[in-house]
Amino acid sequence: MTTEKKGTVRVGILGLGTVGGGVFKTLHSNRETIRKRTGFEVEVTSILVRDLEKERQFDIDQNLLTLDPQEVLNAECDILIEVMGGLEPARTVITEALQGGRHVITANKELMAKHGAELLDIAEQSGAHLLFEASVAGGIPVIRMLQGYLTANRVKSISGILNGTCNYILTEMARTGREYADILEDAKALGYAEADPTSDVEGFDAAYKLAILTNLAYEACVDLAQIEREGITRLQAADLELADSLGYSIKLIGSAREAEQGGVQLSVRPRLLPKSHPLANINDVFNAVTIQADVVGELTFSGRGAGEFPTASAVIEDLTALLCGESSIRRPSWKRPVQGSAAGKNAQQAWYLSYCCTPADVQKLEVEVVESLLAHGSFLASRGESALKSGVIRQSWLIGGAEESNLLQTLQTLYKTGAEERTAVLLPVDGEIEPGVEWKQQVPSVNEEMLSVRHAL
Amino acid sequence: MTTEKKGTVRVGILGLGTVGGGVFKTLHSNRETIRKRTGFEVEVTSILVRDLEKERQFDIDQNLLTLDPQEVLNAECDILIEVMGGLEPARTVITEALQGGRHVITANKELMAKHGAELLDIAEQSGAHLLFEASVAGGIPVIRMLQGYLTANRVKSISGILNGTCNYILTEMARTGREYADILEDAKALGYAEADPTSDVEGFDAAYKLAILTNLAYEACVDLAQIEREGITRLQAADLELADSLGYSIKLIGSAREAEQGGVQLSVRPRLLPKSHPLANINDVFNAVTIQADVVGELTFSGRGAGEFPTASAVIEDLTALLCGESSIRRPSWKRPVQGSAAGKNAQQAWYLSYCCTPADVQKLEVEVVESLLAHGSFLASRGESALKSGVIRQSWLIGGAEESNLLQTLQTLYKTGAEERTAVLLPVDGEIEPGVEWKQQVPSVNEEMLSVRHAL
Repeated sequence: MTTEKKGTVRVGILGLGTVGGGVFKTLHSNRETIRKRTGFEVEVTSILVRDLEKERQFDIDQNLLTLDPQEVLNAECDILIEVMGGLEPARTVITEALQGGRHVITANKELMAKHGAELLDIAEQSGAHLLFEASVAGGIPVIRMLQGYLTANRVKSISGILNGTCNYILTEMARTGREYADILEDAKALGYAEADPTSDVEGFDAAYKLAILTNLAYEACVDLAQIEREGITRLQAADLELADSLGYSIKLIGSAREAEQGGVQLSVRPRLLPKSHPLANINDVFNAVTIQADVVGELTFSGRGAGEFPTASAVIEDLTALLCGESSIRRPSWKRPVQGSAAGKNAQQAWYLSYCCTPADVQKLEVEVVESLLAHGSFLASRGESALKSGVIRQSWLIGGAEESNLLQTLQTLYKTGAEERTAVLLPVDGEIEPGVEWKQQVPSVNEEMLSVRHAL
Repeated sequence: MTTEKKGTVRVGILGLGTVGGGVFKTLHSNRETIRKRTGFEVEVTSILVRDLEKERQFDIDQNLLTLDPQEVLNAECDILIEVMGGLEPARTVITEALQGGRHVITANKELMAKHGAELLDIAEQSGAHLLFEASVAGGIPVIRMLQGYLTANRVKSISGILNGTCNYILTEMARTGREYADILEDAKALGYAEADPTSDVEGFDAAYKLAILTNLAYEACVDLAQIEREGITRLQAADLELADSLGYSIKLIGSAREAEQGGVQLSVRPRLLPKSHPLANINDVFNAVTIQADVVGELTFSGRGAGEFPTASAVIEDLTALLCGESSIRRPSWKRPVQGSAAGKNAQQAWYLSYCCTPADVQKLEVEVVESLLAHGSFLASRGESALKSGVIRQSWLIGGAEESNLLQTLQTLYKTGAEERTAVLLPVDGEIEPGVEWKQQVPSVNEEMLSVRHAL
């Protein structure tokens, strides 16, 4: 479809890093496609950079570059693209641009998760649009889906692999059997992880993205503090190996789920997913989001979740959406708070429990775990034990019909009995599991007599 | 986002079968969500049915039902929903509705694949919209993606599992080792296959859907005759088992690929996909589409490709799109023909060759195959042989660096040498493969001497 020429649209860009460079290059390389499909010539009027002297891998008119955010605003521009990240000066500049009635396109997940409601409000006041497809899952149009497609559907749950760094690390740990710290170094060398990886590996980045998706699905606003968050740093290669042998993948999953009692359960944590789960086979730096909605059922979108061009693509598709006619873009309102829910805490389900200990403590710990299972009417589906290079033992349990609160108590006892707290994990297991055959006999050091004696104490 | 009340929109429905029933029920169950998000009340004014007396699983006002398509048009309606399938009377009624300036939503892939260009043209003339999200991949919004999202991107290739019936049959054959005919009966019993399954199992249905996706991606029109088409009826459980042991899934894939020489290669045929391929793990009745575009890279969408509610969801999301403002919907033009390409025919790549023969013919056939590989400079990556219940042998070859045209010639010779033509398959293998170690020695009945003698003849 060729559209008649509609003139020129002037764009200011904040940031010329990986994504900014991708945006600039794509505006050039796909200029003709954009013109043909939107009718507009796109002209870049000004670009905010950190360093005027920096070597760029592409031709750029030095006169476009500035160190002063105000100059980007002062340069006549109709649309502002923010790809610099961080809260400031992004928040201030975007606020000013929106107040001036300029449309803004941002890739800034932290800003949208923390101040999106306020910025969308300002946009609504001034009649400007604030678009942020690039803030979640790179090139995957999941925001467009939630905002523009699932209109007659009601979203029941969202599960996503939202952080490419973590997914790469977990994929490599499972594939090579090497430990977290080694793979993290590789990831840094490959540019998949930042010098300070905390935001990625501790799940903050995924939590920001989960908040944005949840806000869109429920037209409300999540308080980040409501998101239960656990990273991947405690996982051992032995955990991924055992999970695999039991038919599961371990993935860092951002999850939002409507609780029957009302409210939404929110968490970012590693989970065991059966291999048949649509997210179980999403590997390397790929991201994916599975949405359960009441009419359509399950939908999964996957693709590259980060990197120069996938993210640039999302920015530029937001731009073309603006150019194709604003009426097509709905203005989300995030004024209503999302009601959190702790419903999961005392629901009975399957769990994966794993910790390191010395060979000397193995038996004591087994008895503690088995007693806890007996005491709470839970059962053992499977257990694993592997000797790590360091000589310590990784003891792992696949437990059914258990409440998280009880297992958290059990963990406290285990720490006193010799389990290493620093590397202990308690992970939800998706799907149903069955008790292991004669599971008490499966545990060498435990027998009824021993247990009854201990109970008698 | 709550929209102010904008009044009532009147909808006529053609067809009250599985999808029609799902549409009717969803319009009722999600009435409030639709009103809240679009501002419109939806009123069904008339429904075309085949049988007025038929027992329905839901309450419906008998006065809405009619046997006469004209009555649906005569009943005042703003939007016509066509979910009856088949070319006539659908084509005539839709044409008339569009000429009268009424918007039409259809789930009819055969109609869109064969007459979409003409109908879109009529819509353009009259200013009406013709939407057809439900015609491809049920609830998966792949049409919205191609039409409304990938604007700045140029599509390089599309690969899709577009037929749930075939995917169910192939999944079950791989899972259970049972043969095609058995599983087909199950599929019929489960309602996954029709009494006459030809359109599904021979790939016609997938070809219609591939044509629609290709037309959107290239804003042009595919001649269905340009689509190379092969169904799944010749496959044996032994093929799926061997493929699996070699690390591949066999899936019926609709593929559109830009050829370097220009034009688009179009095919619907079973292919071997490495397990790491995003479509390799899509099982049962699920559909999925992978799009390669120049900026965003690879995007995959998966979900339920058929059934009452997934398809109804697509219809109703088209409806809400209309109600949310037409300017948001681009009018595709399919006037330009898509240039077909036979480029693949003489490209060297990997192939899977498999056929049935009597134990007596095994050696002769091996020699023929090995000679052909030697003659054309191709190589053997792996071979398999399994004795089927019937006592016949399934002989299978994974071949590298071969041209399809040469292997098709070879097949002709093999038929003369005892290979059963009815069950012989030649399937493309995605990805790179390596020659088997000392591959000539792997073939028991073949030795250099024997070959040289035969060459000398």
